[in-house]
Amino acid sequence: MMEKRILERRIAVLGLGQMGRRMAEMYVEQGYQVTVWNRNLSKAKDLSGVIVATSVEQAIADNEIIIICVLDNKAVSDILGQAGEFVFSKKTLINLTTGNPQEAKELESRLTAHGGVYLNGAIQVAPEQMGQPDTTILMAGNKERFNEVKAALDVLGGNIKFLGANASASPAMDLATLSWVYGSYIGLLYGAALVQAEGMQLQDFRDIVGEIAPSFVEFFRHEVNMIQEGNYNITQSPLIISVGATQRIAEAASAAKLDTAFTNVMAGLLQKAQARGFENQEVTAVLKVINTPEK
Amino acid sequence: MMEKRILERRIAVLGLGQMGRRMAEMYVEQGYQVTVWNRNLSKAKDLSGVIVATSVEQAIADNEIIIICVLDNKAVSDILGQAGEFVFSKKTLINLTTGNPQEAKELESRLTAHGGVYLNGAIQVAPEQMGQPDTTILMAGNKERFNEVKAALDVLGGNIKFLGANASASPAMDLATLSWVYGSYIGLLYGAALVQAEGMQLQDFRDIVGEIAPSFVEFFRHEVNMIQEGNYNITQSPLIISVGATQRIAEAASAAKLDTAFTNVMAGLLQKAQARGFENQEVTAVLKVINTPEK
Repeated sequence: MMEKRILERRIAVLGLGQMGRRMAEMYVEQGYQVTVWNRNLSKAKDLSGVIVATSVEQAIADNEIIIICVLDNKAVSDILGQAGEFVFSKKTLINLTTGNPQEAKELESRLTAHGGVYLNGAIQVAPEQMGQPDTTILMAGNKERFNEVKAALDVLGGNIKFLGANASASPAMDLATLSWVYGSYIGLLYGAALVQAEGMQLQDFRDIVGEIAPSFVEFFRHEVNMIQEGNYNITQSPLIISVGATQRIAEAASAAKLDTAFTNVMAGLLQKAQARGFENQEVTAVLKVINTPEK
Repeated sequence: MMEKRILERRIAVLGLGQMGRRMAEMYVEQGYQVTVWNRNLSKAKDLSGVIVATSVEQAIADNEIIIICVLDNKAVSDILGQAGEFVFSKKTLINLTTGNPQEAKELESRLTAHGGVYLNGAIQVAPEQMGQPDTTILMAGNKERFNEVKAALDVLGGNIKFLGANASASPAMDLATLSWVYGSYIGLLYGAALVQAEGMQLQDFRDIVGEIAPSFVEFFRHEVNMIQEGNYNITQSPLIISVGATQRIAEAASAAKLDTAFTNVMAGLLQKAQARGFENQEVTAVLKVINTPEK
């Protein structure tokens, strides 16, 4: 009991980028004994209340739970190779580095082969949004160990979602949600470019996006339900309206002399759906074009 | 005073598509005297409490405020031509048809030349979301007349936003917000396709998107503020992270044999930004690529 409590309040954080630093600070604030390591140790110098390890082995030695959050999984792999996987024996490596499903599978195999336990996570927010009740982190891997370290993960955010025992599940779902995020983000940047081109106010644009977002998110949830049902009958938004709307966006981007590849592809997807005869279906019918592209 | 009150409680609604019908019903519910007109009059037959005009001229004759909401501005233009613009003299035409900025300018000139007043609006929600406290409608045009008809517009939604005296401002802002909406929507469809390809649950995807949306909308607002400041220094999200993330999305779409044009363009935009040396700037630096495309 005593031992468990000590273990729960000790943690190593490998990687001191913006996210790693934030996590180290959060654990310090929660009274954890935090050991940090970074390839370039100077990044640790203004972090207070932490133990700075000069090697990965040293960071791991005194901790059962090791969080790693670095640029990519190639860096994770290099760090494992540098430390020697054996140092992870009986330790739990929580990899919060963004990566792809295949990398998660490979890292899981590597840790497991050396007696370690691997959990793979995907953080869904920016560093300064960590630790909120609605901060979402997708987790996958060894379920029993997940339950044991859940309290430590709860420090990072209030919405820790376990997606199953396959370590690849969290990066796979992460890529799916990131597809939505980046589509939104790039659409937003084009919107900002159009606002600037028309000499309008970015404050207005910012406010309107914030105000209409809840209705659209609700609409998007509705549309995913329809996809799940395989139902393309019109309930909210006929495809033909979106054909015209995306065409106008493409024309406006062209008129404003913006890079038109993105807006043309959006309009093109809708046009392909119309050409396939879906114009009187719900706009979700675009999914059928995405799933079965033309040769 | 008496006259003003009578004017405020009378309105004509031209066009009885899903949105026009909904608006006519809302004005009837609020005790307005509502005159409706539609090219095909049979669409009016199950609307109760309205006066059905058999011509546009008749619909306009008894009203000071005329709302038009039809398929596109070509239809608006045809209807003006059919009625003769002179019938709009001293009347206020509120055009809530979706269109582009140039069309709004042309319609404004045409009305003004015949002694009419033109206001252009862009409804930001679906018909069944009208009339809510957060229902957003973007308005632009003659400011004095806007203030006079504001009470009538408030019937349609609680968030009527006036964007300025240029009638083109509302469709321009509409296209900007739609750019965000369609980027989000198509990104969502790709996410759904990836979830299906991995044999994961669409319910999980739907829930996670709903849960992470508020943080991302907050992040997007932050990013627009940075664009406004012309500040591309990293505060939240370095571009290099997004280069990797969008590349992984593109690879996953390719592996799942989806139409890859959209995901390749997203990844390509980020790669261009990296190639221009913005990798250690905020991801907003992609805007510089959008604004100054390569030849």
